[in-house]
Amino acid sequence: MARVVVVYFSSMGHTEAVAESVLRGLRRVDGVEAEAIRVQDIDEAAWSRLDDADAIVFGSPTYMGSVAAEFKAFMDKSGTRWYERAWMDKLAAGFTVGGGLSGDKQSTLIVMQTYASQHGMIWVSMGIGVREPELDRLSSSIGLMCQAGNAPADETPPREDHATAEAFGGRVGAAAVRWLRGSGSDS
Amino acid sequence: MARVVVVYFSSMGHTEAVAESVLRGLRRVDGVEAEAIRVQDIDEAAWSRLDDADAIVFGSPTYMGSVAAEFKAFMDKSGTRWYERAWMDKLAAGFTVGGGLSGDKQSTLIVMQTYASQHGMIWVSMGIGVREPELDRLSSSIGLMCQAGNAPADETPPREDHATAEAFGGRVGAAAVRWLRGSGSDS
Amino acid sequence: MARVVVVYFSSMGHTEAVAESVLRGLRRVDGVEAEAIRVQDIDEAAWSRLDDADAIVFGSPTYMGSVAAEFKAFMDKSGTRWYERAWMDKLAAGFTVGGGLSGDKQSTLIVMQTYASQHGMIWVSMGIGVREPELDRLSSSIGLMCQAGNAPADETPPREDHATAEAFGGRVGAAAVRWLRGSGSDS
Amino acid sequence: MARVVVVYFSSMGHTEAVAESVLRGLRRVDGVEAEAIRVQDIDEAAWSRLDDADAIVFGSPTYMGSVAAEFKAFMDKSGTRWYERAWMDKLAAGFTVGGGLSGDKQSTLIVMQTYASQHGMIWVSMGIGVREPELDRLSSSIGLMCQAGNAPADETPPREDHATAEAFGGRVGAAAVRWLRGSGSDS
Repeated sequence: MARVVVVYFSSMGHTEAVAESVLRGLRRVDGVEAEAIRVQDIDEAAWSRLDDADAIVFGSPTYMGSVAAEFKAFMDKSGTRWYERAWMDKLAAGFTVGGGLSGDKQSTLIVMQTYASQHGMIWVSMGIGVREPELDRLSSSIGLMCQAGNAPADETPPREDHATAEAFGGRVGAAAVRWLRGSGSDS
Repeated sequence: MARVVVVYFSSMGHTEAVAESVLRGLRRVDGVEAEAIRVQDIDEAAWSRLDDADAIVFGSPTYMGSVAAEFKAFMDKSGTRWYERAWMDKLAAGFTVGGGLSGDKQSTLIVMQTYASQHGMIWVSMGIGVREPELDRLSSSIGLMCQAGNAPADETPPREDHATAEAFGGRVGAAAVRWLRGSGSDS
Repeated sequence: MARVVVVYFSSMGHTEAVAESVLRGLRRVDGVEAEAIRVQDIDEAAWSRLDDADAIVFGSPTYMGSVAAEFKAFMDKSGTRWYERAWMDKLAAGFTVGGGLSGDKQSTLIVMQTYASQHGMIWVSMGIGVREPELDRLSSSIGLMCQAGNAPADETPPREDHATAEAFGGRVGAAAVRWLRGSGSDS
Repeated sequence: MARVVVVYFSSMGHTEAVAESVLRGLRRVDGVEAEAIRVQDIDEAAWSRLDDADAIVFGSPTYMGSVAAEFKAFMDKSGTRWYERAWMDKLAAGFTVGGGLSGDKQSTLIVMQTYASQHGMIWVSMGIGVREPELDRLSSSIGLMCQAGNAPADETPPREDHATAEAFGGRVGAAAVRWLRGSGSDS
């Protein structure tokens, strides 16, 4: 089984709802075992599951043009893994939620992508929407972008964004299965 | 007087030493009144001084390809200022310190520059080194980059980086004086 | 008079239409003298006008996540100015037009902003929209983002984007006047 | 066999020399068939080989903080492939050469990485150097960074950078073999 962990921060619940949609998409893929972990809940057991993962999906709202400070604290804490190259060659992907249609969500994804590169990870791009006009409302490419207003998380982001999140989860899951199979170690 | 505040995070003291060199450069400029504030020490009085500043210089080590989480927490806390447009049209500039010659210091500066844009600030670039071969050892352009090894802060970053930091402070100070004079409100 | 030049590339006419709206906004500012130059039309006289400008506004469609190749050719040709520091301390700003709501327009603006920093320029951010809900439809902050569909340039980008472009031109013009006045050389 | 194409632009020969080192590293990997193509030489046959590749490595000098205009022209020309999703799920990686130790090489790599994401490609990070102190002199992570002075290409970049380029080619080649094997289509 390819193990995928979605690790995210959410304050108002919008990013958490997107994380759940990504998780749903991941779980639809044959051969994928997925879970979601909030950065606030990471204990030693959770770090171990991250270390054991074949792919990690990062998620954070966009605050002031980058990941939330709470998510950055998780990134900094992973510095010991960086030094040990513990996440080397894992797959990585990312998503973010912001209030604007464009906003500075792309710079948040660039921060995540740079972070994954520091760990020596392999980045799975969005890859959805160019030929599926009903998906990827915001036309993102590095990772998943969703846009949420001030309403509660069951109203916003809109359905289309959640459908895109599920498709994105499916894509990351399929890549994880392929990457694990390619290693020859999945028996 | 043009008021300039250097706001920074430092863990091991290297970024603090660079902040002091930037401050020294700022104070050499006629008409500039400058101070440095650590993000850990920001109280209401410090927020007021930031609100009153004509220019703010941001400083953080590069951790995992971006600003330190502690610096990001400061950025997020400034969100109320963002909404009130309290820092609109102030000048901004930034510096970072990392262990590698290039590393991912540029993405840290991009994070700072994007953040300043969210506030509607005006970004003062590095502007030093192309014609001064003894300065800007790392050839940065968005902001100041210094490189520090594992030795204590009185040994690393090297002298050249501190000289560059002073020149950079001087440049930001001169820009602040000009920008304030241009407003017609400096009598 | 503060001289401002809008230098842009446009293939289908959408970016040109936005350039004209930015120009209109610039010309409404007392003390500003503005013109727009297409990168295809830059001859020695045009380079001289760029060298004489107090502020330069860069404009390009977003192609494959960055400025158009034709605009990049202009950027590369300005390398002699870079070496001579000819554009040092000029103000700079930028805009881009893309087909998606977010797309990778932010990375295009980051390319322009990095480019301006190489020249030692001072970057004027967007600064519009947080308190003006009828403007900045896409919530940009580094520079102006417009979104255009496949219809002709008189139909898309929509009116709101052109109104935002005018407001942005006004902001850059006001900054140029202030920056020139601050230099003490505008008599 | 996993097919890998290095596609690059070089003006002075330094980037070409690095491309050759990357190619050497690729060819040392069992199961890899690699070639290098200059963007100036891309004809229909070369486009077909790019379309058939399992992995593409992008290379360009850093000019004015981004890829060279000639390389950007190649990127823009690939827009038809983008629309057809012809490069979807291929692996991608990138390298750049600049005159400064840091310079704005990271923004060049971000441009390449964003471009690869537009195509729906999977990005192989640098992943070298943290535990190999004799490699990755500049501490890059998104892709390979080399630094060249004004001397001819047989003198600069230094040996260490070429050794790093070979190791990087080896890493990309191994990833391509694994990715192809995982697809189940390499019989």
